[in-house]
Amino acid sequence: MKEKELIQIIKSTLNSEYIGDDCAYLPDLGITVTQDSLVEDIHFSMKYTNAYKLGWKSAMVNISDVCASGANPVYLTIALSLPKNIKADFVEEFYKGAKDACEDVKIVGGDITGSEKIFISVTAIGSTKGRKISSRSHAKAGYKIIVSGRHGSSGAGLISLINGLKYPDFIEAHLIPKAQRKFSEQIAVNALYDYAMMDTSDGLADALYQIADASNVIMKIDFEKIPYDKNIEKFSDWKDLILFGGEDYQLVAAVPEELLKNISDYTIIGEVIERNNKSDGKIIIDGKHYSDIDNKLYNHFEE
Amino acid sequence: MKEKELIQIIKSTLNSEYIGDDCAYLPDLGITVTQDSLVEDIHFSMKYTNAYKLGWKSAMVNISDVCASGANPVYLTIALSLPKNIKADFVEEFYKGAKDACEDVKIVGGDITGSEKIFISVTAIGSTKGRKISSRSHAKAGYKIIVSGRHGSSGAGLISLINGLKYPDFIEAHLIPKAQRKFSEQIAVNALYDYAMMDTSDGLADALYQIADASNVIMKIDFEKIPYDKNIEKFSDWKDLILFGGEDYQLVAAVPEELLKNISDYTIIGEVIERNNKSDGKIIIDGKHYSDIDNKLYNHFEE
Repeated sequence: MKEKELIQIIKSTLNSEYIGDDCAYLPDLGITVTQDSLVEDIHFSMKYTNAYKLGWKSAMVNISDVCASGANPVYLTIALSLPKNIKADFVEEFYKGAKDACEDVKIVGGDITGSEKIFISVTAIGSTKGRKISSRSHAKAGYKIIVSGRHGSSGAGLISLINGLKYPDFIEAHLIPKAQRKFSEQIAVNALYDYAMMDTSDGLADALYQIADASNVIMKIDFEKIPYDKNIEKFSDWKDLILFGGEDYQLVAAVPEELLKNISDYTIIGEVIERNNKSDGKIIIDGKHYSDIDNKLYNHFEE
Repeated sequence: MKEKELIQIIKSTLNSEYIGDDCAYLPDLGITVTQDSLVEDIHFSMKYTNAYKLGWKSAMVNISDVCASGANPVYLTIALSLPKNIKADFVEEFYKGAKDACEDVKIVGGDITGSEKIFISVTAIGSTKGRKISSRSHAKAGYKIIVSGRHGSSGAGLISLINGLKYPDFIEAHLIPKAQRKFSEQIAVNALYDYAMMDTSDGLADALYQIADASNVIMKIDFEKIPYDKNIEKFSDWKDLILFGGEDYQLVAAVPEELLKNISDYTIIGEVIERNNKSDGKIIIDGKHYSDIDNKLYNHFEE
């Protein structure tokens, strides 16, 4: 089954208003919370990474989800399942990596158990104090679409690792990504109105698509405006890497134009327009309509 | 390596004051948080359970940890990793079980990914509003040791499952345990002074030992007082099942005697006494000193 079909089953079973965004927003507690798992040989291979980098990435991808919500990441719990023969220094290096990724975010608990393959599940908690929280359903026609950082580098890094190519910047982008805490903070602290924000964990195009779908708008993108590392042009299908590559953990947001005067270090890549006809695509990139980008997306359950 | 040695490595790497109790207490957010994982063929086997019961137990064991902290369980996130060939009705039944276990606790998010074996990691959040939070280091000489419910039933249930014995009550105790929310609430709402509380997920004796160790006291127990189902006497080593069986998800607490007038449905099984000599055991059961009960405990990493 496809991941999205399974999520649909979960939604209808739980009949919950919370399932939808990557983070759940719990206003009564003043927090957002997210949980993501990394499974050996599905999400990572020890052929290409090490314990320190794995710890770093496990923490960072969850911090990134909190950043996407607009909350301030404050606490993390880590559940780690490891094969019996694992060495003590693996555990030590893993937690060193996680701790370094965390900076001032505190690791406050978790669990360690046995398993056949390495399995990591991290929960991150963000404080909503002084922040306006995002939702992927909050994009409105007229909003500007902005992004942090460069796109496609992580995908190029994975290809480099698999094929033994020497692109250290891309490989670093893939193995030790950085969450965009500053970009998130500027928007969430200064926002007066609703806005949409996601990270690009599943690719820039997927994030744009999810926002368009949940907000019932069109995300109109000018490909030329998307920032990327010029070296990526050496890869075949490099435009697909930029749009669909995933795991860059950059942020993409749809915000009112007046917010832009209060923030820095962003790139406008397009704008939100009304979607009046069902035949219109949900994202338009350089005039090309995408109604369904599922077949371009990585899907763990796809046969 | 042993689980406890790995936890020691994590503690020293993180240098964190939070790692120790099953829940982390985050007073600035007014919450406690816990995360536990269940791995197929390590913690459960699909030979003995089904998707509904697995969902129930996954949710309940984490709700139980929140109850042990004294907080009021309010939210849950669930990360589920499943083999590719899994059926949609597995996911639906799993979430139905989790939802039924939750009662008023809300499932607000999580993650679904692929894996070879079934892997479940649940995070539970409790609200500390109006509650005094426990710590395993808060037992004091003179405190009474009280427990909820009956002990050993879950272990007897597992033996029944493996050996095809017909003890439906024990099997139910093992497959669909119930967290002791009422017991926890009465103590946490009425407590004026520090107290210690744990659930018996790793066995009654282990909980007693952990409290004694963290509080530097002796937990003196009268075995006769421990409530249990008389049918358990039909099992060989039935006293070991009661003390070391685990997975009953009952609560054990060390509380000031004056608190007892405000609570109901508890059994006094002993009292906390001072530990003046290093040669004293940490728990004393019917006069027998236990200094180290590690070798009686289930350990996922033990060779």
